[in-house]
Amino acid sequence: MIHVSRIFPGYVFDLDGTVYLGENLLPGALRAIMTLRALGSHTVFLSNKPLETRADYAEKLTRLGIPTPVHDIINSSWVLNQWLQSEAPGANLFVIGESPLLNELQEAGFQLTERADQVEFVVASFDRTFDYRKLQIAFDAIRAGARFIATNSDRYCPTPDGGLPDAAAVIGAIEGCTGLLVEVVVGKPSPITAQALLDRLGLPAEDCVIVGDRLETDIRMGQEAGMTTAAVLTGVTTPDILAASSIQPDYVLEHLDALIPPSAG
Amino acid sequence: MIHVSRIFPGYVFDLDGTVYLGENLLPGALRAIMTLRALGSHTVFLSNKPLETRADYAEKLTRLGIPTPVHDIINSSWVLNQWLQSEAPGANLFVIGESPLLNELQEAGFQLTERADQVEFVVASFDRTFDYRKLQIAFDAIRAGARFIATNSDRYCPTPDGGLPDAAAVIGAIEGCTGLLVEVVVGKPSPITAQALLDRLGLPAEDCVIVGDRLETDIRMGQEAGMTTAAVLTGVTTPDILAASSIQPDYVLEHLDALIPPSAG
Repeated sequence: MIHVSRIFPGYVFDLDGTVYLGENLLPGALRAIMTLRALGSHTVFLSNKPLETRADYAEKLTRLGIPTPVHDIINSSWVLNQWLQSEAPGANLFVIGESPLLNELQEAGFQLTERADQVEFVVASFDRTFDYRKLQIAFDAIRAGARFIATNSDRYCPTPDGGLPDAAAVIGAIEGCTGLLVEVVVGKPSPITAQALLDRLGLPAEDCVIVGDRLETDIRMGQEAGMTTAAVLTGVTTPDILAASSIQPDYVLEHLDALIPPSAG
Repeated sequence: MIHVSRIFPGYVFDLDGTVYLGENLLPGALRAIMTLRALGSHTVFLSNKPLETRADYAEKLTRLGIPTPVHDIINSSWVLNQWLQSEAPGANLFVIGESPLLNELQEAGFQLTERADQVEFVVASFDRTFDYRKLQIAFDAIRAGARFIATNSDRYCPTPDGGLPDAAAVIGAIEGCTGLLVEVVVGKPSPITAQALLDRLGLPAEDCVIVGDRLETDIRMGQEAGMTTAAVLTGVTTPDILAASSIQPDYVLEHLDALIPPSAG
């Protein structure tokens, strides 16, 4: 079995398919993360999914046996919130998203409006209540000059039965009718998320490993940011997908405990 | 004023922005069409809009003073219906569209279903009742192997207040979540619609003029089919748009009566 050769000061873990699947920790996850922490490494957790808050993720990890404070969770709704706070604090937003995202933005001082002529930013996100009325408001607002941004660009969110259309569907609908491309997508693999992770860890990229199950988001973002990258085969990436991809991580791990060199475990 | 140099055996007229705007005939339309008919030319009418039936369009033209039989109207829902009848008669369809389209397909013997595993074709169209539930069915059906086609690919339908997101929004949403491109779009500028027009006229392309207000649909399709093309400036195309476009029609008309050479009028 191949192991990562040394212990790094910082680790970024994707969640779904990397640390857990549904309500179950994946093999090796608990031991790897607790061992890294015991050795003094800093661990942060990353999700593109804007349907839950950072507090929800922190609570879930804690419940599964990995006690984690809220500030070590980075998700796309939080990154969007931070980006907007620096770009246009208090701006008028029209958000195609679900209540956790809406609440988070409202609590951060943004004004949510459905009046197209007052909207400064249209935010496209994962929204299981997306409908034509929302599409019309987004269309009218963008035609009236609003900027068009998104939390994430995942095509679908895998489920036991298949998947749920994710933010890429909302982006595609708006791009389709306006003829304009989304300006900023903050979620991984965006450098905006990479910077948020590095800021949280307080470490240079070369001191950090990103661990995830998706080559085109986790691994690509890590490579572009200059981190060490480790793909784990417990999620969507199979050896066949890996062999066919132009994105090749520094390490390929069967399970997360391969993050611990035998000498350190 | 520039006139078309001669009378042709066949004429194809776009409707909105060419023959009428809302409930009003455009200047010269009545005289031009009635004169062409009196001279023995055959006139057919074309719309990409799948929200009304051919009977609705025939009734509207007749009400406005241009008596027109249903069989001289070609719209994208009818072309889709014809295409599907030759490709897969009686097939199981899931249609994202409004009732006139659904009724037309049902009357033609197609089975409409929302059971994703039974769908053979997902049909994307202009649908002001589009929502996440429909998107989910389309996603599931296409992932299970259904083919993905569309009536038209217009971005939006112009209205006095701005516009309504058209079929391109539905196509974009489905492409966004599935990662697959729509396979066939039958509406203009597709050669499928051009062929339907020529079949209806029963004439070779060189004997026909297509008259419309949109360079990228009406004029482009006519050029690709080998028809003579005439852009009329009563709709979306302005002299500035025309000057900037790579698509240049054979004739540019201020009004439809410029279709009649002075010697013939």
